[in-house]
Amino acid sequence: MPGKIDQRLAELKIELPNAAAPMANYVPGVRSGNLLFLAGQVCSWNGERRFVGKLGAELSLEDGKQAARLCALNLLAQAKRVLNGDLDRIVRVVRLGGFVNAVPGFIDQPQVVNGASDVMVEIFGEIGRHARTAVGVGSLPGGAAVEVDAILEVA
Amino acid sequence: MPGKIDQRLAELKIELPNAAAPMANYVPGVRSGNLLFLAGQVCSWNGERRFVGKLGAELSLEDGKQAARLCALNLLAQAKRVLNGDLDRIVRVVRLGGFVNAVPGFIDQPQVVNGASDVMVEIFGEIGRHARTAVGVGSLPGGAAVEVDAILEVA
Amino acid sequence: MPGKIDQRLAELKIELPNAAAPMANYVPGVRSGNLLFLAGQVCSWNGERRFVGKLGAELSLEDGKQAARLCALNLLAQAKRVLNGDLDRIVRVVRLGGFVNAVPGFIDQPQVVNGASDVMVEIFGEIGRHARTAVGVGSLPGGAAVEVDAILEVA
Repeated sequence: MPGKIDQRLAELKIELPNAAAPMANYVPGVRSGNLLFLAGQVCSWNGERRFVGKLGAELSLEDGKQAARLCALNLLAQAKRVLNGDLDRIVRVVRLGGFVNAVPGFIDQPQVVNGASDVMVEIFGEIGRHARTAVGVGSLPGGAAVEVDAILEVA
Repeated sequence: MPGKIDQRLAELKIELPNAAAPMANYVPGVRSGNLLFLAGQVCSWNGERRFVGKLGAELSLEDGKQAARLCALNLLAQAKRVLNGDLDRIVRVVRLGGFVNAVPGFIDQPQVVNGASDVMVEIFGEIGRHARTAVGVGSLPGGAAVEVDAILEVA
Repeated sequence: MPGKIDQRLAELKIELPNAAAPMANYVPGVRSGNLLFLAGQVCSWNGERRFVGKLGAELSLEDGKQAARLCALNLLAQAKRVLNGDLDRIVRVVRLGGFVNAVPGFIDQPQVVNGASDVMVEIFGEIGRHARTAVGVGSLPGGAAVEVDAILEVA
C-alpha cells in the first residue's frame, strides 16, 4: 500500500527521479538521532545533467526555479532510499541549504531557491516548511545551476 | 520583567531590528530536539537594505564587520520571535555560517565574520562562543555584503 | 595506551597537524547532544599556509585533492583537542561541507573534496562514510584553495 506522501506525489503528478549514485566517496544521507543529513544534490534527472550554466547569464530565473525544484526532488529520492522507501517517516523538513551558480551581480537567489522550497511545501504541507539559506556561488559540480542540501527530522 | 539577555542588550545599548519576513516560501527558524536552525539573515535593518556591495571593491573591512554584526542581530531578532520573546532559552550558540560577498582576491573573510561572532560573545558571554565557517561567495540576495545563518541550542 | 584510531593513523603513517588556533573570535568545535560541530578548516599545516590559489587557475586537481585532505586532517586535529585526545569517541562522521576556491568555469568540486572524504574513510572505515556538500566559491580565508567543515557524532 502506498504511503501518504507517495499518494500525495501521485495526486500532484510529481515523479521522483532515480536516486543518483554519489559522484564521489560519500553516502547520500546519514542519520544521527532523529536528524537525517542529506548530501547536496544538483539539478540532474536520473543522473543526466539538466540546467547547466549560470543565473544572470545563459539561464533565466524560471530555469533557476526549475533547477532548484529538481534538486529538491533528488533530495527526496535520496531520502526515500535511505528511509527504505518510506517517505512517511519524514516528520519535518528542518533546513535547506541552497547554492545558486550565478554571475557576481546576481541578486535573486531567494526566488531561485523557492523552486525547492515551494515543492517541499506542496508535498509535505505545514511540516514541509523549513529554515533556509540561499547564497550565490561561482561554480558548482558539473556546471549545475543549483545545488541544495537538506536536514530532515525523521521518525 | 525583562529577561537576563534583554537586560544585557539594554546594558550594551544594543537594539534588535524587527524580525524580517522571509524573502520567500520558508520560515525563519525550525526547532528539532534542542537544536534551533535559523534561516540565513542578510545585513538589513527593519527590512531595509544596508551594506549592499562587495568586500574588496566598494566596501571596506569595517563595513563588512558592521554588516556581519547586523546579520547577527537579525538572527537574534528571529530567534526571539521563534522563542516567544524569551532569549534566555538560548543555552548555546552552536554554529554560525558566514558568507561574505567578495571579489575573487579577497582573503579576510574571518575578520568580516568576526562582526557577527564578536556581538554574540558580547551578548551571551561564554555560551556565545561557537563553531564557525566563513567563506567568500560571488553574490548574495539583494546584493547584501554578508549573510549569516546559525544553529542554536535551546532549552 | 594509544586508542584504536591513533593506532590506525600510525599504521597509515598519517600524522595530524597541530590544531590551529581559530583565526578569529570563535571556537574550533561545539558539542550539542551527541553532535560535534567543527569550525571550517583550511588547508594549512601547523598554521602555515599551503595550497594558496584557485582550482582551474594556478592549482591542479591533484593540488586540490591534497588541499582537501589537509583540511580533513585539521578537522581531526581539532576534534582530538575537543575530545580530550580521544578520537575513539567518534561514532560517525556525519557530514562534511566542502568549499573549493575556484574560477567560474570549474566543475570538478566533487573530485577535489574527495581528498577529504577519502582520508576519512581510510581512517575510520565504514563509520567514516558521510553525507557531503561540495560547492565552488570565489574566495576563501587567506587565499586557501579549500575549506571543509564537519559534523561528527560522538559518544
